[in-house]
Amino acid sequence: MFEQNPYSKLISSYIQRAEFPADPADLYDPIRYILSLAGKRIRPMLVLMSSNMFGFKDLTLALPASAAIEYFHNFSLIHDDIMDKAPLRRGKDTVHQKWNDNVAILSGDALLVKAYQELGKSPADKIPALLEVFNKVALEVCEGQQMDMDFEKRTSVREEEYIQMIKLKTSVLLGGALQMGAILASASKEQQQKIYDFGVNLGIAFQLQDDYLDVYGDPSSFGKQVGGDILSDKKTILHIRTQQLSEGADLLEFNDLVSAQEITKEEKVGRMKNLYAKYNIDQYAEEVKQRYMHLAYAQLESLDIDPESKQEMFVLADILMHRAK
Amino acid sequence: MFEQNPYSKLISSYIQRAEFPADPADLYDPIRYILSLAGKRIRPMLVLMSSNMFGFKDLTLALPASAAIEYFHNFSLIHDDIMDKAPLRRGKDTVHQKWNDNVAILSGDALLVKAYQELGKSPADKIPALLEVFNKVALEVCEGQQMDMDFEKRTSVREEEYIQMIKLKTSVLLGGALQMGAILASASKEQQQKIYDFGVNLGIAFQLQDDYLDVYGDPSSFGKQVGGDILSDKKTILHIRTQQLSEGADLLEFNDLVSAQEITKEEKVGRMKNLYAKYNIDQYAEEVKQRYMHLAYAQLESLDIDPESKQEMFVLADILMHRAK
Repeated sequence: MFEQNPYSKLISSYIQRAEFPADPADLYDPIRYILSLAGKRIRPMLVLMSSNMFGFKDLTLALPASAAIEYFHNFSLIHDDIMDKAPLRRGKDTVHQKWNDNVAILSGDALLVKAYQELGKSPADKIPALLEVFNKVALEVCEGQQMDMDFEKRTSVREEEYIQMIKLKTSVLLGGALQMGAILASASKEQQQKIYDFGVNLGIAFQLQDDYLDVYGDPSSFGKQVGGDILSDKKTILHIRTQQLSEGADLLEFNDLVSAQEITKEEKVGRMKNLYAKYNIDQYAEEVKQRYMHLAYAQLESLDIDPESKQEMFVLADILMHRAK
Repeated sequence: MFEQNPYSKLISSYIQRAEFPADPADLYDPIRYILSLAGKRIRPMLVLMSSNMFGFKDLTLALPASAAIEYFHNFSLIHDDIMDKAPLRRGKDTVHQKWNDNVAILSGDALLVKAYQELGKSPADKIPALLEVFNKVALEVCEGQQMDMDFEKRTSVREEEYIQMIKLKTSVLLGGALQMGAILASASKEQQQKIYDFGVNLGIAFQLQDDYLDVYGDPSSFGKQVGGDILSDKKTILHIRTQQLSEGADLLEFNDLVSAQEITKEEKVGRMKNLYAKYNIDQYAEEVKQRYMHLAYAQLESLDIDPESKQEMFVLADILMHRAK
């Protein structure tokens, strides 16, 4: 989606130039492996775009912080995949699947340290502020992952708890990436907060859209099994809202479907979608997404910089928000 | 051993004042738990002692870096214990034993981030240099742990490989703690290097002594099962040297003992000690230890500060080196 833009190219070439020792092989091979699976690299791009937007002259000085964000994201994928017992990541074997859990734990740890090592290559006068944001966000991501695992064991979750979980697990990292770019460009605290809030709200909207697309997306462009969340009883915004609104026979049907063992995948997805339709769940999810999207756009709008400089950030947000629709 | 000295008291009270959120409980309870098992806290003490030795006036400003070292150490214990499937730590259940592997992975991650958060509370002008040392050491500790796991799968290990492993896995953290103290006190690069080398060599000597005491220590004062390393075929300096020197019938006996399944614990330890005796392995281990100890003392001696200021560091080294003899 973004392979050809100048930020992506800068980031890819910077990360490809990173050299990891040959030994111990089981420590560094998994790091080389996960970085080679390169996702869309939206997070490191946000650091550079934010730096640029706030007028930072030499973007190469923002590359270490940008790589720190990407390394952190990949560290969290390695460890989350162990915890979730996930066999595949970006269509390839996960690290713990290709090697084993111990290798995944330790190489993940090393990658987290490497993230901080990259951060430490930033301009010295910016390091304390960058470190503070990075630490806060990193801890919140851990909290979000723990909440996500806790929710799996519960029978119901409130909508605001869910929003808080996705905020911590995925959105604060987007906000943090943008704030770090702003710090590098010496933006004021107020501007930093606004661009952080923009990222967090955009991230929440993006995750809500992901929930929506998992059920209503076009299989050919979404890239995942449609209905996967329904089949795994994931407590998405759609699931939570339906559980909350259903009564009587509908609630029985909902509970039946959630614990269903003996029906086909198609039947489970089909019947759940019927319930969703009855309560206009698709529309509700779209509304909540829109609410966070508008919050995000308003933050970006309110930034005290000339409108032209914001243009590419609006474009990025548009692309993310109209993905595969 | 050190509970009553002023450094220990400062550290304990600082760490006890640290507040972790109540929720998510499975993220923060294990952190509270492992920190409550408080070991000897030698590592954080080294930060303060070094700061003090190099003339830093306000030791409370060194407490965050000191806590960072202690948190890092405890993070590494949580994750190592998962990898080693260890049921006990400091006589209590390990985190993964008391909760589960997922909780241990994620709370370990969070504790590592908390370590960096503490580091970030240091005087801002020192943070870049502190971060650099901390990152280097943290990565080396991961490398050491990986080497240790790799060695378990091998049939033999060379002595220099073993020394390199214990250096990375345990000693560089002592050196790093001391160097961080020196950085806080604005010591020169040269002085930083010397106190780092002192710590690394002292750490190697300490680990070699640990190998020795595991076989020859007084069970009542050593605090572990004597002969534990022999029973688990751990490739210590004693094991490596014996394997290297043995020939003919002795090598057969050595190999027999290493793979022995059907003999009693007492017989295995007794017969291995006979082999050690034949090749004066105890004496050799003592010699190698002495070599690193002398290297350490020489570094401390050569520091460009008045001898009186070094006195308590010599005392600490003496205590560590004559422990339970």
